Amino acid sequence: MTQQRRAFLGNIAAAGLAAQAVTAQAAEATGAAPKGAPAAPVMHDMSSLPPQWMGKEQIAMLVYPEFTALDLVGPQYMLANLWGAKVHLVAATRDPVRSDTGLTFVPSLTLDETPADLDILFVPGGSQGTLKAMQDARLIGWIADRAHRAKLVASVCTGSMILGQAGLLRGKRATTHWATHSLLKDFGAIPVDERVVWDGKLVTGAGVSAGLDLGLSIVGRLRDPTYAQGVQLLAEYAPQPPFDAGTPKTAPPEVHQMMGTMFDGLLAGMRETARSAMGA
Amino acid sequence: MTQQRRAFLGNIAAAGLAAQAVTAQAAEATGAAPKGAPAAPVMHDMSSLPPQWMGKEQIAMLVYPEFTALDLVGPQYMLANLWGAKVHLVAATRDPVRSDTGLTFVPSLTLDETPADLDILFVPGGSQGTLKAMQDARLIGWIADRAHRAKLVASVCTGSMILGQAGLLRGKRATTHWATHSLLKDFGAIPVDERVVWDGKLVTGAGVSAGLDLGLSIVGRLRDPTYAQGVQLLAEYAPQPPFDAGTPKTAPPEVHQMMGTMFDGLLAGMRETARSAMGA
Repeated sequence: MTQQRRAFLGNIAAAGLAAQAVTAQAAEATGAAPKGAPAAPVMHDMSSLPPQWMGKEQIAMLVYPEFTALDLVGPQYMLANLWGAKVHLVAATRDPVRSDTGLTFVPSLTLDETPADLDILFVPGGSQGTLKAMQDARLIGWIADRAHRAKLVASVCTGSMILGQAGLLRGKRATTHWATHSLLKDFGAIPVDERVVWDGKLVTGAGVSAGLDLGLSIVGRLRDPTYAQGVQLLAEYAPQPPFDAGTPKTAPPEVHQMMGTMFDGLLAGMRETARSAMGA
Repeated sequence: MTQQRRAFLGNIAAAGLAAQAVTAQAAEATGAAPKGAPAAPVMHDMSSLPPQWMGKEQIAMLVYPEFTALDLVGPQYMLANLWGAKVHLVAATRDPVRSDTGLTFVPSLTLDETPADLDILFVPGGSQGTLKAMQDARLIGWIADRAHRAKLVASVCTGSMILGQAGLLRGKRATTHWATHSLLKDFGAIPVDERVVWDGKLVTGAGVSAGLDLGLSIVGRLRDPTYAQGVQLLAEYAPQPPFDAGTPKTAPPEVHQMMGTMFDGLLAGMRETARSAMGA
């Protein structure tokens, strides 16, 4: 027990530091030096670590203009706690990228700088920004290339539409935000109405907040349930939504109706874009 | 129904654009121009908006080195969907700020630039970075000043320790991350073991992921349940954690034990810092 405990302390501390080192280096290179210094490491005994808790994953999380920050930050919290993993925030350039709710992030690597062989490629969703990303041939080509060699390809929300555009959903069980669920078959996917859907090396999540469940699910697979439970406790992830309107089935009909029409224009644009991808 | 629906479309679109405008302006001023352009507005009819759904809140969300990004991004998603609200990301300077999991954010306002009279002041947590923030006299003074006049003061996770340091928890019902819950009384608070705790104009959340529940709870109070349900559906917030270890009570005892000792050093530091605050 003592051995296991010390191991976990080391894991969490080292994971945090690894992630920090990567982004610090990147920020320094662009002259956008962040204010924070790495936190002091928690004391740990390397010799006591269960080998299955130590990894060396290369994880690339994509950002693009007008992506939804919560799609990414939920899973990023979970993945950054994988001891030994390096989590990169990747974008077309190192310029700051603004999310659809107005948060601005500094990428740590450009697409070209991102390791060719990734353990995890992660793609967040959004609305109009996601449609634009689907229409960006260079980005879609990069995703297809990295996904082909990645050990795991993951998306949250409408991020799966981008994966679909890159041809990665054909014949695969997948999910997405409820509002774009009807588009999954446009990309040749097998639509599944579940929160997190695994199919081989592909894992897709439902809308926005599903990223927390997806991230924790990945941690459980890459380490083990005990490790994932530790990360869940660290996140105090015992959700208590104050309302029960999180899915079209549980939301009051008038709320579902009200929100559904928000996406009419986006759906039409994505369907048209999908047509070009599937026709090619 | 049609009237109500159109109203909500306008709300969500306008909220997104308002948040974007604020950060775009800030990024431009610092030369850190983000790549994204504002999304095209969703068509809406201003004349049909229920007046109670239109707000003009000034919301300041604090960031500091080594804060926990998910503490902030969960509620930021919810608050950015308050139609008419302006959500600012505020920090000591406009320099990028790195979170404890390695995400780097560009603030939109400095502390001095932040409106004196806020509708919401929000403070996220962290670990060693939060302890350093508690020991930053200028920051604590700023928080005390803005909180005094703010209509609502909110924190997630160990962010409540910062509020405590600013004297804002005395005699108040409050919560925090489970690991620092025993410190609440050091700040004169009445500890409450609930996920989101309201006491007058103070609202505190439990650890990290509790920010989603807190944010949605605030949206429900500032607008109405129907509006909040719309935001919940947009976020597809119907959580399904793959494990049941999110609290010390539900986690396997060995997992709780393993994680608990991680915080020994932090607790000692925060307790010592609290002593200086309460003695003053």
